[in-house]
Amino acid sequence: MSGGIDSAVTLYYALNKGYSCSALIFNYGQRHLKEIISAKKTADLAGAGYQVIDLDFSWGKSALLDSSAELPKGRLNRKEIPPSYVPGRNIVFLSIALSYAESGGFSEIFIGVNALDYSGYPDCRPSFIEAFNRISEVGTKSGVEAEPIKISAPLLELQKSEIILLGSKLGVPFEYTWSCYQGGDSPCRECDSCLIRAKGFKEANIKAVSYTHLTLPTKRIV
Amino acid sequence: MSGGIDSAVTLYYALNKGYSCSALIFNYGQRHLKEIISAKKTADLAGAGYQVIDLDFSWGKSALLDSSAELPKGRLNRKEIPPSYVPGRNIVFLSIALSYAESGGFSEIFIGVNALDYSGYPDCRPSFIEAFNRISEVGTKSGVEAEPIKISAPLLELQKSEIILLGSKLGVPFEYTWSCYQGGDSPCRECDSCLIRAKGFKEANIKAVSYTHLTLPTKRIV
Repeated sequence: MSGGIDSAVTLYYALNKGYSCSALIFNYGQRHLKEIISAKKTADLAGAGYQVIDLDFSWGKSALLDSSAELPKGRLNRKEIPPSYVPGRNIVFLSIALSYAESGGFSEIFIGVNALDYSGYPDCRPSFIEAFNRISEVGTKSGVEAEPIKISAPLLELQKSEIILLGSKLGVPFEYTWSCYQGGDSPCRECDSCLIRAKGFKEANIKAVSYTHLTLPTKRIV
Repeated sequence: MSGGIDSAVTLYYALNKGYSCSALIFNYGQRHLKEIISAKKTADLAGAGYQVIDLDFSWGKSALLDSSAELPKGRLNRKEIPPSYVPGRNIVFLSIALSYAESGGFSEIFIGVNALDYSGYPDCRPSFIEAFNRISEVGTKSGVEAEPIKISAPLLELQKSEIILLGSKLGVPFEYTWSCYQGGDSPCRECDSCLIRAKGFKEANIKAVSYTHLTLPTKRIV
């Protein structure tokens, strides 16, 4: 779980399907580390357990890990991979989730990746989710001896507005989610993540809830 | 790199092919954490750089992470997955290596997995290496925009004796490698890893070098 809308909707989706869930939250040096507070709060409100996992991503070259780097602004619908791409990020996240799931006896991993609104990220596409399911099949004990742990990405082919409508139906508390990559006191409303959020609420015809009332720390917190 | 023979031979193999190498060494709570000293020493002697990466594997259920658990003894050539299997271990290791390689501009990842002598591990088989190469192709920026980072496992189909012969030709300092899973002051000579090592040297007709003279710490060191 990040602190954003997609993660929150994915958690509520899985709970609504009857799954008992444990949320994995990664502290990997992201500049918007305050999203961790959002993720914990959302998991708490949903009645799901969570675990924060610290990851050393100090080698990672990305505008998302370097608060002095320029974040992409206004690049919606462009096709190139944005500078906020973190090399191998979702690969590492899913690997750890797979290890955690197999150790804990979980049957499925839900991930809130989405290929449409933000199509630049290679690790948010159907072919990547398919390839990772193959890893689960051939690279784990459960995959070889019993049922492979399934990686599900229920939002993969949805527009942001459809995700927001789905979340709205499921009772997702959007007011506690955090999308802005800048990680300042209030959302910058300029980075791609802010723009996509605003566009999604507008297209869903739902009043965009403010998430500025949360007092969130800006220093490394975990 | 672990501290064992396969990792050391793999490093020397890659160096011999002309690659400039950086060794990744994982500190993940393994009971034989002294292997980290062996790995560092081997990388140093080879003139390769290295980085030790700390990983929280506290959720991992495995006899390799729990020093009170019974390790498999004398199960050579059995087919079931041994209790020393760590859920998702090589998946996590390769994921981090992929992130590290992409960030640092490396073209290839070498891993010393071997499917023959220890065929019980699902994440040491050709199908797993093939599946992970697919991850590199579809899940990374380099895979999508340029050449995918290749995952190579040059020892995959070799017998342990062939690995030792290869290492011997390449000048691998076997006396600094550590194989025993127990991680005591001297090798237990009973665990599978000790037995495979001894069998390998015997079949290669090479005098098994002692690695008991190394004074290695037994407490968590990094």
